[in-house]
Amino acid sequence: MQLFHTIQDIRQYVADKRAAGRRIGFVPTMGYLHAGHLSLVERGKREADIVIMSIFVNPLQFGPNEDLDQYPRDLERDLQLAETVGVDAVFAPSVREMYPHQQLTFINTELLTDNLCGASRPGHFRGVTTVVGKLFNIVQPDKAFFGQKDAQQVRVIQQMVADLNMPVAVIGCPIVREADGLAMSSRNVYLSPEERRQALILNQSLTEAQKLFEQGERSADVLTDYVSRRIQLAPFAKIDYVKLVDLQTLSDIREISGESLLAVAVRFGGTRLIDNIVLQP
Amino acid sequence: MQLFHTIQDIRQYVADKRAAGRRIGFVPTMGYLHAGHLSLVERGKREADIVIMSIFVNPLQFGPNEDLDQYPRDLERDLQLAETVGVDAVFAPSVREMYPHQQLTFINTELLTDNLCGASRPGHFRGVTTVVGKLFNIVQPDKAFFGQKDAQQVRVIQQMVADLNMPVAVIGCPIVREADGLAMSSRNVYLSPEERRQALILNQSLTEAQKLFEQGERSADVLTDYVSRRIQLAPFAKIDYVKLVDLQTLSDIREISGESLLAVAVRFGGTRLIDNIVLQP
Repeated sequence: MQLFHTIQDIRQYVADKRAAGRRIGFVPTMGYLHAGHLSLVERGKREADIVIMSIFVNPLQFGPNEDLDQYPRDLERDLQLAETVGVDAVFAPSVREMYPHQQLTFINTELLTDNLCGASRPGHFRGVTTVVGKLFNIVQPDKAFFGQKDAQQVRVIQQMVADLNMPVAVIGCPIVREADGLAMSSRNVYLSPEERRQALILNQSLTEAQKLFEQGERSADVLTDYVSRRIQLAPFAKIDYVKLVDLQTLSDIREISGESLLAVAVRFGGTRLIDNIVLQP
Repeated sequence: MQLFHTIQDIRQYVADKRAAGRRIGFVPTMGYLHAGHLSLVERGKREADIVIMSIFVNPLQFGPNEDLDQYPRDLERDLQLAETVGVDAVFAPSVREMYPHQQLTFINTELLTDNLCGASRPGHFRGVTTVVGKLFNIVQPDKAFFGQKDAQQVRVIQQMVADLNMPVAVIGCPIVREADGLAMSSRNVYLSPEERRQALILNQSLTEAQKLFEQGERSADVLTDYVSRRIQLAPFAKIDYVKLVDLQTLSDIREISGESLLAVAVRFGGTRLIDNIVLQP
């Protein structure tokens, strides 16, 4: 496995691989890898010849009061994990390498970023689309793999790629969960044992809502009220949102008629967790 | 010379040329070609193996009260002119091909677009950067050529490319003028004979200001006042702006100390003309 810190070096690597006819898969991450990230690599290995992973904690997608400084980082550990699943090259640039001067240009996707996490985290998705656009231009992958835990992110990036005619296929991959159901997240390490225990309510309540849906429930109010009430039983939980939205537009719906996303964001202490489930009638 | 109307077809053409090791030059235009556009092609022929020209009147860069509907179009004539200078392929998509659904994603360059034409034409540069970003992603050129008459556009696109790590070199090319000094523009066809005559004052006053500069004048007020007073002598002229700005930041300066841009936008009847000159101490 090769490690590159500069744009010039990863570009040369990609150019060589491409000249040899290899198809490039790309897994952009903020590091502190878990089994969710590794599942993206495994998918990439099946769908491309070469898998490149980027590890970059992108300041542009953190708000002023968010956890940029505290975000967990451990490159040594990440490189070991990446190697175990067969990553071919890691691109781990510095902030200075990615933002050498004041960034004046931003990619922004409207409407899809107004709801859900976009409403709670102003500027977050502008930071995501801008850095993913930059990384796509640097790595020029054929396919890029993103986890469905950040369902809004997947949808926004697919829209960006379509709107800007970026020559890359964006593939959303299933959420990977701990044995007890908690969705994998680099932020899970922030949780105290008691918070960690209470956080199980996210997946549990979503799964229960899915059962209600499968029994015929179609009302957004009924389903979101159910999930909210279940989560509120966890004493440490502070709900940011519980929403049922159309999977394409990400706007609120009243009744499920097409593919829909039931999504939650909940704080446990200082840690904000997200989870979701797709409901398909 | 080949003509393509769809993204899929031009992409296939580019892929074939690139597989054969050709370096791709790109001249994006809104058509109604003049000698300025053709000079960009000639520069492209010297600096690349293949020159692709796009012809697309981009609705996104026109304001609601601007001349989108009236903008001159003549594809037949454009194709003949393009062939005379050795364009290899023309990409002339429909609006529907470029914007098949509601465009939600925009590329925006801040600060550099606040002054000059950006101040008079809100949203204009967002439309330019977005469509140029799309075209770059479609054509994937090695080099792209733009006319220095739209000096702000050149500067903004160079910033976009740097900020977003787009793998293309943006080359600004000298203004091409009619024999009497009027800067070439597709909009010149709008001018009545009398407007056309009076419009010569743009280049004349800029050239005279340059002489003052060469004689040692460094004050922005003196130089812009001089140009404004000269232009106001033309009875049909309505000044939009006469500005002296730093060539890098495009912000107003009081004294010339580095590379500077003296730029004007003036209406003659319904026609808005721009011109500029770089002052290099």
